[in-house]
Amino acid sequence: MRKYNRVGPNHIAELKAIVGEKNVLTDPDKLITYSQDEVTDARYHHMPEVVVFPETRDQVAEIIRLANRELIPVTPRGAGTGLAAGAAPMYGGIVLSLEKMNKIIEVNAEHMYMVVEPGVRTKDVQQAAAAVGLLYAGDPSSGDNCFIGGNIATNAGGNKAVKYGTTRHQVYAVEIVTPTGEITELGGLLNKSTSGYCLEQLIMGSEGTLGIITKATLKLIPLPPYKMDFLAVFPDTETAIDTVFKLLKAGIDPTSLEYMDNEAVNVCARYLKVGLPHQEDGNYLIITVETSTEEELEDKAARIDEICTAGGAIATLVPDSKTIWAARRAFGDANREESYIHSPEDLVVPVKHLAYAMREITRICKQHEAVGRVVAHAGDGNLHLTIMQGNIPAEEWPTKIDEILHDLFAFVYSIGGRMSGEHGIGSKRVKWMHRFADPVQLKMMQAIKKALDPNLILNPGTVFEVD
Amino acid sequence: MRKYNRVGPNHIAELKAIVGEKNVLTDPDKLITYSQDEVTDARYHHMPEVVVFPETRDQVAEIIRLANRELIPVTPRGAGTGLAAGAAPMYGGIVLSLEKMNKIIEVNAEHMYMVVEPGVRTKDVQQAAAAVGLLYAGDPSSGDNCFIGGNIATNAGGNKAVKYGTTRHQVYAVEIVTPTGEITELGGLLNKSTSGYCLEQLIMGSEGTLGIITKATLKLIPLPPYKMDFLAVFPDTETAIDTVFKLLKAGIDPTSLEYMDNEAVNVCARYLKVGLPHQEDGNYLIITVETSTEEELEDKAARIDEICTAGGAIATLVPDSKTIWAARRAFGDANREESYIHSPEDLVVPVKHLAYAMREITRICKQHEAVGRVVAHAGDGNLHLTIMQGNIPAEEWPTKIDEILHDLFAFVYSIGGRMSGEHGIGSKRVKWMHRFADPVQLKMMQAIKKALDPNLILNPGTVFEVD
Repeated sequence: MRKYNRVGPNHIAELKAIVGEKNVLTDPDKLITYSQDEVTDARYHHMPEVVVFPETRDQVAEIIRLANRELIPVTPRGAGTGLAAGAAPMYGGIVLSLEKMNKIIEVNAEHMYMVVEPGVRTKDVQQAAAAVGLLYAGDPSSGDNCFIGGNIATNAGGNKAVKYGTTRHQVYAVEIVTPTGEITELGGLLNKSTSGYCLEQLIMGSEGTLGIITKATLKLIPLPPYKMDFLAVFPDTETAIDTVFKLLKAGIDPTSLEYMDNEAVNVCARYLKVGLPHQEDGNYLIITVETSTEEELEDKAARIDEICTAGGAIATLVPDSKTIWAARRAFGDANREESYIHSPEDLVVPVKHLAYAMREITRICKQHEAVGRVVAHAGDGNLHLTIMQGNIPAEEWPTKIDEILHDLFAFVYSIGGRMSGEHGIGSKRVKWMHRFADPVQLKMMQAIKKALDPNLILNPGTVFEVD
Repeated sequence: MRKYNRVGPNHIAELKAIVGEKNVLTDPDKLITYSQDEVTDARYHHMPEVVVFPETRDQVAEIIRLANRELIPVTPRGAGTGLAAGAAPMYGGIVLSLEKMNKIIEVNAEHMYMVVEPGVRTKDVQQAAAAVGLLYAGDPSSGDNCFIGGNIATNAGGNKAVKYGTTRHQVYAVEIVTPTGEITELGGLLNKSTSGYCLEQLIMGSEGTLGIITKATLKLIPLPPYKMDFLAVFPDTETAIDTVFKLLKAGIDPTSLEYMDNEAVNVCARYLKVGLPHQEDGNYLIITVETSTEEELEDKAARIDEICTAGGAIATLVPDSKTIWAARRAFGDANREESYIHSPEDLVVPVKHLAYAMREITRICKQHEAVGRVVAHAGDGNLHLTIMQGNIPAEEWPTKIDEILHDLFAFVYSIGGRMSGEHGIGSKRVKWMHRFADPVQLKMMQAIKKALDPNLILNPGTVFEVD
């Protein structure tokens, strides 16, 4: 582990000269907000020495050059809605918040793109697109709160990824400040390019370790004119999950294909204080389709009904869209309210192994006497297993959860899966990354990190450690 | 420029021990085939010292380890259909042909993927998918001859990229031998992952400079049941190109959106000895749509007709699909047959600047008294301008074409374009890469190259030079 220098009064003075006095935070009471994201486990909370709020890319670049010169770590931060402690400053130093770089720079309806600063809320991106009759297809569950910059940095997924892909598929270009303080725009307003290495895809999903995103050009697409949600209710996990691949293969091209187990349905209903269909015993598949004609919608509706019924659904219905999606989105908050001690996981597996994976992770949880609840971006093979505290005493939790995670990740990697589908490694999963990632690839990643960030000042301790 | 060692008799002996005597080629008469790809300009032809034909990934890895130990450059080669001299061994040494690694390992219809070795012909991939009722969506014009490994290495595009994306979007995983001779599989049978850097996207399109692809897992998708080609004939380039964005915005979701100027139409008709519709004065948009219902197809057909007619088309018709696509695909061969001295270019621009770009490149060609012909993957902003020898004396060609290319690339970069949309930089465009690529990004690419290939043995002189 590299040694860094502490932030001294001279550095604070210099930071104030760069971003202005009002944009430098040193009050310990206020710094605490910036010591964590949504990860509740205190092992992954770390106090910054100072938080800065640059307002321009040039200020970001100046801060990074200072950090290189003085060997002070810098942790970029969006809205702090992360679930992997990627924004917690593992080595202290400077937290660089992008929250004041929050302008929508251009909405180009004619040519279907949008240029934004990183601190724009994802919901605002979606609404700005919808206002001109277009769709921004990124849709993480935390969309009301998260920032687009964080979405790009973690390659956020969400409820529409099965059709549209994850955030990395919604982006034409990202302007970054490099780890050495240079400014460059990667990618372009282009539908294709083979003119050198695909640096934009390398940066996206690198969790702020290879560059700080200061601007992004997002893809917009025509809003499909017809859209409908369906709810298929299954008596058990097995029949629900067995139906997922049949839906994927039927040419229905679903926009969403979400799974909620019965416990998740009840947890979300309680949290929202609403009644949900077949709440007493139903396991859900929520299926959304978007089409260009009404006939196509009817046709696909009929096929969905047929496939789900043949697959063992006890009911297929058109739910109240607002309620059903509110329930799906409430899962994280509901668990957190119920038990501050919990671990929201983000396993991803080949869809062909989804049913088997569901059985195995349930078995692993039971074996450890832990309570697991599952919602899933089922169409993506992405399982949001949340492990609740249950009867585990708080003091035993760190040991216990690590034992459970070890077994879960060992299983997931054994079937070609990964520990994170869309939340990222952050600092929370670094030790597991070193344990389970392919050693050749880990070495490649570390070599790239060192090549682009020779002083290792950008978000150290996130994704992996480097000597 | 790095100094490499020459291949000596001891190396030949060792190579024969690795791949077997029959898989080592040293006869100069036979080596010449491996000195070039489809680039006809002799400046980009370079003789290898030896060609090897490994049959397994372990043999590839052994060769790479030998090359590192002995500091001998290795240039991987697919079918040799490249258009950027990326497979020409700039520094001599070993050409590593993948043509004997040509097995389709698995076609999994149930779970919609295919596992292939790099030397499988793209056409065979497409046919193997179609045989089980599925679609492999990659479709480069050279599909009858090129290898899937080369498609991945260059991120080949083609005629369906407007809907399905380029080759990098068709790939779940690539197994590579790294520049230091290790074997690893990047990516996975996963629909998403944020578990470390996206190395698979870095490797794809890196033109064999960061790894040798030894296996790939490809995405297959349900074959859309309805498909139709349309031909809209325009009186001039301007009206044709002005219609492209209108079609993209209309929610038609075209599978192909190709442009052929009138000269290209005639060149291809002559080459194929066929008559083509409105051959005397027509400029073509070829539009393909695929739908899930017949009604949707009819609806889209009506909209295409309406938009093209309103846009100034003198005719819209349903052409003979086989003939029209044969014509489109024949463009490269037809030009080459007509004049061995020519330069097929691959400019890519933001689609919003497509009409302007078309005017400018025509102006630049005229200004240099050169004859340019254009076909375009218009929906992608990807312009295949082919500059013909015309009246330029052979001995003046190298100087003249470099002057033209300088002006073309300077223009394209000035509007946010790139010099290659899908063919790659190869060795042909290296000097232009150093001239026009963003210097910060070039430095990042070089740093990554050095980090992953410290001895710079893998395809040196391709994409860029490194000190």
